[in-house]
Order: sequence, then structure tokens, then C-alpha cells
Amino acid sequence: MPNKIYFTPGPAQLFYTFEEHLKKALFLDIPSISHRSKTFIKVVEETNEALKELLELPNGYDIFFLNSANEAWDRIIQNLVINTSHHFANGSFSKKFYDFAIDHNKKSAITESSAGNPFQSMKVSEEAELIGITKNETSVGYTFTEDEIAQLRKENPDKLIALDIVSASPSLPVDFSQVDTAYFSVQKGFGMPPGLGIWITNEKCLEKAEEKAKTTSLGSYRALPNLKKFGAKNQTPETPNMLFIYILGKIAQDIIKAGATRMRNDTTYKATLLNQAIENHPLLDHFVSSQKHRSKTTVVAKTSETEKILKFFESRGLVLGTGYGSFKENHIRIANFPTHSKESVEMVCDLMKKIE
Amino acid sequence: MPNKIYFTPGPAQLFYTFEEHLKKALFLDIPSISHRSKTFIKVVEETNEALKELLELPNGYDIFFLNSANEAWDRIIQNLVINTSHHFANGSFSKKFYDFAIDHNKKSAITESSAGNPFQSMKVSEEAELIGITKNETSVGYTFTEDEIAQLRKENPDKLIALDIVSASPSLPVDFSQVDTAYFSVQKGFGMPPGLGIWITNEKCLEKAEEKAKTTSLGSYRALPNLKKFGAKNQTPETPNMLFIYILGKIAQDIIKAGATRMRNDTTYKATLLNQAIENHPLLDHFVSSQKHRSKTTVVAKTSETEKILKFFESRGLVLGTGYGSFKENHIRIANFPTHSKESVEMVCDLMKKIE
Repeated sequence: MPNKIYFTPGPAQLFYTFEEHLKKALFLDIPSISHRSKTFIKVVEETNEALKELLELPNGYDIFFLNSANEAWDRIIQNLVINTSHHFANGSFSKKFYDFAIDHNKKSAITESSAGNPFQSMKVSEEAELIGITKNETSVGYTFTEDEIAQLRKENPDKLIALDIVSASPSLPVDFSQVDTAYFSVQKGFGMPPGLGIWITNEKCLEKAEEKAKTTSLGSYRALPNLKKFGAKNQTPETPNMLFIYILGKIAQDIIKAGATRMRNDTTYKATLLNQAIENHPLLDHFVSSQKHRSKTTVVAKTSETEKILKFFESRGLVLGTGYGSFKENHIRIANFPTHSKESVEMVCDLMKKIE
Repeated sequence: MPNKIYFTPGPAQLFYTFEEHLKKALFLDIPSISHRSKTFIKVVEETNEALKELLELPNGYDIFFLNSANEAWDRIIQNLVINTSHHFANGSFSKKFYDFAIDHNKKSAITESSAGNPFQSMKVSEEAELIGITKNETSVGYTFTEDEIAQLRKENPDKLIALDIVSASPSLPVDFSQVDTAYFSVQKGFGMPPGLGIWITNEKCLEKAEEKAKTTSLGSYRALPNLKKFGAKNQTPETPNMLFIYILGKIAQDIIKAGATRMRNDTTYKATLLNQAIENHPLLDHFVSSQKHRSKTTVVAKTSETEKILKFFESRGLVLGTGYGSFKENHIRIANFPTHSKESVEMVCDLMKKIE
């Protein structure tokens, strides 16, 4: 059993059923069986189905297994961008997606807003083939609203929209019909160890990749048409992280069984408690001033007492997150993921009151 | 506890200390701590050191964490080949590396020999920048000898040599000073679940990548100079598969403690037993006719009774491997990895005698 409760925004607290599924996976020899066996094909099928149901994916959207959200940025640029993309960035991770495009020698554009602040303009460069946005900017706790995503879609019907749902999924409802591709890593909301990334794409993405392939290499085993070829058989091109694919499916099933709507309502309830705790505390203030853009899953407060607060909690077995990057010493970040019970969040809020 | 003993050549039997380290990793919260924490940096350092010692890596060789051997092929072509590579292939996996180069639009060359047979010529195309060879062709059990590797090096001093050591490491001794880059995945000789790949490179590789970067993108987070930048701090660009990196280091340490030389001697002893069992059996014959090219870690026999033999063993809780690809029904493959005890291999040989 773990020693502490982690409220860090990823790597994070393991999902409460993680160890149970891990034991079962070992009992079933999941790490030793062939990845081409009927047993494992069934595992992939079940994980796909559970994720599709939990995330409410529309028809025509496929799920592929990568190894991290970093890899999703890499493969999206490699597969879906010929010349240029446009990125909306107001934090480290949204900025990094743009950096990856530049690394790939794309002539990409960026609309930057100072960290945590809404964008002054949502105008997209005309030649951009793909727009990168971040549902939940984990570094500063900024959320792109569903209305903003829908508006972006309306104004750019011919461009691909790529949505970062790291630390957003499965807690925040997302209308996937408004985007073409989305991705997350499992060490946030799904409460798993890092090492598995999920890449969601629609048919428009596949068409774009096929168009690009006429003139430029898409890479090799993780070229989208190749992922699609294997995915259609519930397989992967390479021997994948079979253990984690199995456990991810089981955790998704657990959340469905306990009620996805309930989990999302609980997320809102817990976020409300945490936000109140921030508002009522003399040492804390919201970092994201715009209420509707405040993340429910990564609650971020600015403070001049980060070290003191973190030490106070750590000595009680609770690990909160520091600020990210340049905010390391001026923020605290509190993850609010499905594995965090209402009781544990209430405990955080109660303890917070004792810090002066 | 697993139900069966897997003699399949990967995914394979878990290392006998795997579960112990897994439990300890969970106790230490390895999957939840920050990948930038001092604790995890220490984990990466220890895993690197254990691997360097176990594999007897010379100075100037770096270890990087990928997610599979497929990814190693992908990243090698992306980072180290500008125009063309040359591949020696006499089985499915060595051929696949060539296919990956073609997928990347390289003008690569291939010297093919029929599966399991020695190469008629070891001549390399003049313009090739990198030579791909396979220490242990897992699909058919063919081993490239150390002498052949040394000869290739002598004849091609200016080209990079990439050695596939999937299913060879850590059992087969390799003189890494004769190659520039090598790679393996952990689900073979290291007895781990799939999902982690190891990429070894030397300074010549870094120079080549830096040369290529002047004109062409190397990708993004896994561009070799970026891996090197993070690796120098015992870090990774992305949040990696922390749990597996921890366990890999512990397994490497276990093998070192029990004696790497002893493990390699045992490998030879067990291979000898398996080869004798094949020679003495009316239904079995060696697939690789050349004795010195026969793999010690993936022992392959041709037979017309694959199904019967596999069923016989499976009913006794022992899982042997089928043939690979087109040999599925005409070969059996028996993995001989460090986790397979001498006793378990003796049991396989004894049981084999009972099949008529």
C-alpha cells in the first residue's frame, strides 16, 4: 500500500482499484501472453469499448495506444501537419506542443496569452492545417470552455482541431464531435503509473495523413494509416504496454459502473470545496482570475508560502503539487481526479484552515 | 502467481524477482512521485549504472529509455540516417528494420538470406551511412557471431553499426565497442512486461544526429541531442514509464549479484541441453543448420508436429513458442532467458522425450 495520498497533478495518486487489477493481470499472465493472442485482442477490444463509453466518443473516432502525451504531440505533427499549425498557449504544456511543431521544422504560429489568462484573440492563421488547444492546462489550471471550442470549430470548419485532454479526462465532459483529434496520458485522471498515452482521431485525420503520405513520410510503425490497419483488428503494430492497456480498461469499467455522471458531479463538488478553501484563506488566491476558465481537475492557487504549505501537508501524509516551471515557488496545485474521494478533499480543505 | 511457465520468446516468463520489485515500487510510491524528483533521478541513475555494468558498456556509451524495439528502429532512422542504410536480414525482425527505413523514404539497401541461413556476402553498399544487423534474430533463432560483427566493423570503419540485441541481452556477451548503437525491449531476456525499450548510443551517433539536424528535423522530444540533454541529468524529456525503469534496474542488479558470468554459463548449459533434445528427437530438427549461428536464447526446431508438441506441453503448464510468421506451424521456439532455471529446462527436455 502507498504511504501517502498524492494530490499532485500527475504522476498522481493511483486509482483505488489499481492494485486489484494489477494482481488480477498477473494472475492471468497478461504480461507473458502473446500480444497477437485472442486473449489479448479481447483485452484491447474491451479497453477500447470502455474508453469509448466513458468518454462518450462519437462513431468514427478511433483510439490508439501511444506511450505519452509527448508522443501524441510528436505523432500529430508527423502525421497531420504538412506545413503549419496554429497553437493557443497560456501555459507550459500548450506552449510545448508549439515547440514540438517547430522542432519538426513546421512554420507554425502561436497565439500566446500570459499564463492563466484568457486569449485576447481567437483568430487562427489562414494557412494553418491544424489548431492546437488545451482543455486543461495542467501547469496553471486553465480550462478551455466547451463554448470556446465550439466557436473555434465554427470559425475554422476546414482545419483539424487537436485537443489536449491530459488531466481533463475522464473528469471533464468533452464534446468530441467539435474536435478531430485528442490525447491524454494515463497518469493523471485515470490514476495509473506513467507509460501509456491515448490518441483519439477521426476520419478527417486519417484522410489528412493519407494526403500527407503522398509527398512526405509519416514515420513508420506509428504512421496513422498503420495504426488504423492494426487497430481495426484490435491490435497494435508493436508489442505494446499490455499490462497498462489491460488495467486502463478495467479502471474505465470501474468508473462506468460507479457512474460516470456521478464522478463528474463529484469533480464539480470537490472543485467547489477547494475553490472555497482558496477564497477563504488569507495566504491563498486564485491564479486564474476568470472563473469559467478555472480548472476543476487542477486547482491552482498563488501564494507566497508554497514551501510552508506543502511541508504542512506532507507531514500529515498528503502530497500537494508545487507550481510548475517558473511558478514553482509561487503556486500550489491540487489535483482533483476521480480517485480522490470527497472525504479526502474535505480533509485537505479542513487542514488548509489550520495554516496561518 | 502466474499459472504457467512461459518459454515463449517474448512476451515471456516474468523474471523470478519481478513481483517482489513491483511490490516494493508500489510501497515506495514510485508511480506517483514526480519524475523530476531527486528520488526518481536516483532511480534512473541506478538503472543506468546497473545496465552499464551488466552489459559491460564501454565509456562513452549512453543509455536512453524508449518504449519498444520498434521505436528504436524508428528513432535510429529518424536520427542517424540522412539518405540510406544497409540491412542484413534473414528473418522477420531484421527485415522489419529495413521496412522502417523504406517507410521513412530512405533509399536503403538490404542483403537478404533465406530465413535462418548465413549471408553469402557481407558487402555493404558504399553510400550506406548505417548498417543494421541483428545479434539474435528472434523469429528463427539465428545468431550473428561476435567475429562477424568485428569483421563488419573492420571493413566499414566509417559507417555506423546498429545492433539489434532484442532477446540477446543480457544473456549473450556483446562487445559494444564494435558497434555504435544497440537496442532491446525488456519483455525478452529481462523478464518484464512489454512497454519499455532501451536505446544505447555512442558519441559517433550524437555527432551524426547533430550533422543531420543541420538540414533535417530529427523529430522532437526523442531527437538524440534532446535525449542526451536530459539523460545527462538522469532525466527523460517526457514522463517515462517510471515503474518499469525502476524494476529494470532492480532485475539488472539481481543478475549482477547472482553473477552475470554464471548466468551466461547457465545460458550455454541450458542451450546445450535443448539442442541435444532436438538432435535426439525423431520429430525435431535444427532449423539453423550452421552450428555457430544457432541462437542460445531462442532455440528453434523445425517439426511437422508443432500443434501436438505445444498442446502436450501446455497441458502440463509449460508454454512453448510457435514458429514466427510463415513458420507458425512448422517450428517450435523455446526461449532460454535468465529467468528460466536449469531445472525447468531439464524438465522441458525430459518431457520432450515422451512425445512420439
